[in-house]
Amino acid sequence: MATIFSRIAAGEIPSYKVASDEGHYAFLDINPVVAGHVLVIPRREEDYIFNLPEDEYKSLWGFARRVAEALKKAVPCKRVAVAVMGMEVPHVHIHLMPINSEGDINFSRKIDLPAAEMEAIAAAIAAEFESEA
Amino acid sequence: MATIFSRIAAGEIPSYKVASDEGHYAFLDINPVVAGHVLVIPRREEDYIFNLPEDEYKSLWGFARRVAEALKKAVPCKRVAVAVMGMEVPHVHIHLMPINSEGDINFSRKIDLPAAEMEAIAAAIAAEFESEA
Repeated sequence: MATIFSRIAAGEIPSYKVASDEGHYAFLDINPVVAGHVLVIPRREEDYIFNLPEDEYKSLWGFARRVAEALKKAVPCKRVAVAVMGMEVPHVHIHLMPINSEGDINFSRKIDLPAAEMEAIAAAIAAEFESEA
Repeated sequence: MATIFSRIAAGEIPSYKVASDEGHYAFLDINPVVAGHVLVIPRREEDYIFNLPEDEYKSLWGFARRVAEALKKAVPCKRVAVAVMGMEVPHVHIHLMPINSEGDINFSRKIDLPAAEMEAIAAAIAAEFESEA
């Protein structure tokens, strides 16, 4: 059975899409830790990032960097932080989070943003991503 | 002036070393979030991971994977989590943390391990890393 992330990447479940290419998809985390919290996934299902074949592993990190660069332009921050934990959904996902201090990252403290704001953030990141493509 | 991490990689400041190659160095975080918390750094100084040249960026992630595989064998865990924040030391460092649940990662809750235990953990990871080299 397809993971929820495969269904999001396939467009079967709606998401706040920010970027995609043939092998990858990026969208806003629906339970963000900070505004502009993005998840980057490979389209192919794999549970654990360190089990990806070498080419897919490096390609994923390459795509994640392009998304991080767009994110940093779209959402003012000191830098984009990275996290990979992956105990909740069995499909590799890289968290990208615009932060101004390390204390901004606290996975036990989620924020709730109105849909209109989520849409605006996603559109701003997507525009930056497209302008670099 | 050299960063503290450059001085650690050069051997000028002692560390619980777990792995190294020509371009990279890995050692135990002296303020671990979990037992077996490793920092992976490039020897060359760069403040922000997404500013690394493409070859160094991908090479760093390749080296981090090899360390993560050794870490998972040496320290029993469900998986090795990844984090990159980097607001405290201006030298790229990837956190690798063996976890059994996402709650294991809490950067505001550090643990204190005796030196003998730190040495034993580092030696166990290093042995696994060497056996794969």
